[in-house]
Amino acid sequence: MNTDSFPSQILENAVKEFSQLPGVGRKSALRLVLFLLKQEKNDVLRFSDALKKLCEEIVYCKVCYNLSDTEVCDICSSTKRDHSTVCVVENIKDVMAIENTQQFFGVYHVLGGIISPMDGIGPDDLTIKPLEDRVNSGEIKELIFALPTTMEGDTTNFYLFRKFNNHDIKITTLARGVSIGDELEYTDEVTLGRSLINRTPFESSMKL
Amino acid sequence: MNTDSFPSQILENAVKEFSQLPGVGRKSALRLVLFLLKQEKNDVLRFSDALKKLCEEIVYCKVCYNLSDTEVCDICSSTKRDHSTVCVVENIKDVMAIENTQQFFGVYHVLGGIISPMDGIGPDDLTIKPLEDRVNSGEIKELIFALPTTMEGDTTNFYLFRKFNNHDIKITTLARGVSIGDELEYTDEVTLGRSLINRTPFESSMKL
Repeated sequence: MNTDSFPSQILENAVKEFSQLPGVGRKSALRLVLFLLKQEKNDVLRFSDALKKLCEEIVYCKVCYNLSDTEVCDICSSTKRDHSTVCVVENIKDVMAIENTQQFFGVYHVLGGIISPMDGIGPDDLTIKPLEDRVNSGEIKELIFALPTTMEGDTTNFYLFRKFNNHDIKITTLARGVSIGDELEYTDEVTLGRSLINRTPFESSMKL
Repeated sequence: MNTDSFPSQILENAVKEFSQLPGVGRKSALRLVLFLLKQEKNDVLRFSDALKKLCEEIVYCKVCYNLSDTEVCDICSSTKRDHSTVCVVENIKDVMAIENTQQFFGVYHVLGGIISPMDGIGPDDLTIKPLEDRVNSGEIKELIFALPTTMEGDTTNFYLFRKFNNHDIKITTLARGVSIGDELEYTDEVTLGRSLINRTPFESSMKL
């Protein structure tokens, strides 16, 4: 679409901002902006304000590096959580996914990425140093690695394992196995093989 | 996705705003917000500001009802345009499409919709009264109807035709015919039939 034909600079600016979002092209951006123009003025102002707050007020929790409204996030400051069990995850979406299970009562450590030499991300780009400090403080009894099952995830797992294996803490990782609802014939060999080796007593499979 | 698991109210608010956009679900909204969080603070502030301006400063041109930064839009205030030829369109996207052709040198009238009883949109919901005033002012020599080729578009065409037929103005509509690049065998009968009836001298087809 020719940018010259925008009837209004304000409109063009708004379209330009939307079209910088991932997966939003110029035509979709125009559609979204025209949608907003039809909304109540206050609704659009609230949208604008939400974005302003997003970049000005949100912070990373100084303990676990999760996103937070306060210096220390709700999870890290909760007295109901087990602060000696730390689940190490890649990003905040993983925290949300685990919180949604309502099965974890420990705290988190958000790495902010995983080691990926191809993308130029090394250990120093992640929050591994602060994790070391947490471990060194002696308050942590167990680290649960909940990283992606990709090559980069495995690399990060091994790096962290080597770093913390000589400490007096338990290091665990998420159980791998056949997902609930999966058909055996479509499950890959590695997963199926591992789920046979790590088979669990039938009673424990009924807990959830 | 459970809303309880958002680690931050600010984050949740931003996700909520994005998920109200058409075609954006909660998961996509979260993806967009996390993308914005990775951007420079100034970029997000500019986005926020663009939205604020969008709802506070943009106006409808008081002549043609196109979106505009000023009381009278650039097209309506241009001395290079032919103000006696008015192209009647449904919405601003149509203005942009026609401007992109660079083949129209008249001015516009944006109806803001088309007559659609099914959606509860009648003539009074559109800018037909202001169009009448423009016609009555005697400055208009030709009205070009450039409305969609749908039932609602045709209804609106007939309504406008009946209203303005007794005035001393020329009323025209966009030529219908086989689109450039279309194959004859896939063109519908009505279009093909009309394009035969309204066949044009070969020389004029080479103008564009």
